[in-house]
Amino acid sequence: MRNFNEDNITQAVLDRLGACTNERTRAISEALVRHLHAFVMEIEPTEAEWAQAIAFLTDTGQMCSDTRQEFILLSDTLGVSMLVDAINHRFAGRATETTVLGPFYVEEAREVPLGADISHVADGPPLLVRGTVRDPRGEPVAGALVETWHADDEGFYDVQRSTGRAALDMRARVRTNENGCFWFRSIVPAAYPIPNDGPVGKMLDAQGRHPYRPAHVHFKLSAPGFETIVTHVFLDGDQYLDSDVVFGVKDALIQRLGSVEDEPDTALLVYDFVLPDHRPS
Amino acid sequence: MRNFNEDNITQAVLDRLGACTNERTRAISEALVRHLHAFVMEIEPTEAEWAQAIAFLTDTGQMCSDTRQEFILLSDTLGVSMLVDAINHRFAGRATETTVLGPFYVEEAREVPLGADISHVADGPPLLVRGTVRDPRGEPVAGALVETWHADDEGFYDVQRSTGRAALDMRARVRTNENGCFWFRSIVPAAYPIPNDGPVGKMLDAQGRHPYRPAHVHFKLSAPGFETIVTHVFLDGDQYLDSDVVFGVKDALIQRLGSVEDEPDTALLVYDFVLPDHRPS
Ligand SMILES: [Fe+2]
Ligand SMILES: [Fe+2]
Repeated sequence: MRNFNEDNITQAVLDRLGACTNERTRAISEALVRHLHAFVMEIEPTEAEWAQAIAFLTDTGQMCSDTRQEFILLSDTLGVSMLVDAINHRFAGRATETTVLGPFYVEEAREVPLGADISHVADGPPLLVRGTVRDPRGEPVAGALVETWHADDEGFYDVQRSTGRAALDMRARVRTNENGCFWFRSIVPAAYPIPNDGPVGKMLDAQGRHPYRPAHVHFKLSAPGFETIVTHVFLDGDQYLDSDVVFGVKDALIQRLGSVEDEPDTALLVYDFVLPDHRPS
Repeated sequence: MRNFNEDNITQAVLDRLGACTNERTRAISEALVRHLHAFVMEIEPTEAEWAQAIAFLTDTGQMCSDTRQEFILLSDTLGVSMLVDAINHRFAGRATETTVLGPFYVEEAREVPLGADISHVADGPPLLVRGTVRDPRGEPVAGALVETWHADDEGFYDVQRSTGRAALDMRARVRTNENGCFWFRSIVPAAYPIPNDGPVGKMLDAQGRHPYRPAHVHFKLSAPGFETIVTHVFLDGDQYLDSDVVFGVKDALIQRLGSVEDEPDTALLVYDFVLPDHRPS
């Protein structure tokens, strides 16, 4: 097999995958080749444009570090992360809607007692976050792990401010009590641009798009017997709710800030989550 | 605009490109979004699989260095580089066929006089390379720049053996004389695996593919008034001519090694190139 041209190279690459013994790997590889070749056939890139594409992907990989995941930003801003999220959450029933994980999740955030203040370094208007975790039948889920993280009042995450893990801030894990309730204190997060000093920022510029996300608090919720869910709660009234750069906003995830009784300066964010039952796989 | 799901997110991302003022950037971005979303809809990746895809792209970017271009290897092994090459060389007439640049081209190779030996460090069977550069009407092109590079007899390029530019070897630039002729001495290159200690090597393994390219000498030919061409000359008889991992082999680029008169130990490689006329752009 040789003498490949526009008419026969796609099939030639597909044929070369015939020795692939893992069925899933072959299906993914075949689909990648077909869609990637169709993309290239449609845009007919010049050699300079293809070199630019290679450079873009290289720069995107080289921008990644312990605290920066530029390929997740690329997936997010092209709407792919939300598409993958949708495909994986075709739940029947009344489980909480999901949205993207984003690039700022940190696995090793510390566990704190209910009611703890998780904002130590950052300044901002005080916030009390309160919620419940229930199963689809309305029963409280006790001991559910609630992982939360959010930006400060200037729109920066802890990992964007510092270089080490020592400075973890505005992120923590709490566990629901016997009534499925959790609460913690922090500060009100601001809307923010996704990190846009890298290749993805240049792409957004070139596409005439702003890099902003509406203000939100991230949640990852897990408990034995249930599907883990990753979601945000968005603050109502934010100017970017209809133009979130990563397409993550859902009406059911928007909540208006209230105020805490006897604490006129403290904003209150309440959200009641429903975990979906574990799917047999 | 919010509440995106599998049915509406592709259009939502396309709509977001409406503010893109550069027509080409918009066309490329739109095609990318359509084909990328169609790929994801077809394979329906789990969240773990999508995280694996992000990790693969990240590792590929981080593998790149001054002397290693893993994204070119990825493009090459998926047949995309040859597709881009085909799209950009729809020449009428009798110009020399083209093939991939590959990841081992070095721009700043030194220019040497005709007849020079360009292999200083590497050992291997002696080789004399001889050829002509002509225009499509058969007239010799004098002063054409002939850039050449190839592997050693163990299948390694200079840049794979050393870390610095000081050790450039088996690569050079020569200029054709007034009769359009060039010649230089070197060693006979061997077939080689593309660098397969990185993510692309792992991909080939998973796909059940070998990483080999048949033995060849690279050429990049340029002269004022003509299109630059990038090609190889492949050595006839190589066992990988029908399974080149980057799909680069064309019958017209295969040449049988001869022998040099009065030098029984020196192999002879002869190839006569035809540069295409400059296309108005
Ligand atoms: Fe966020
Ligand atoms: Fe090569």
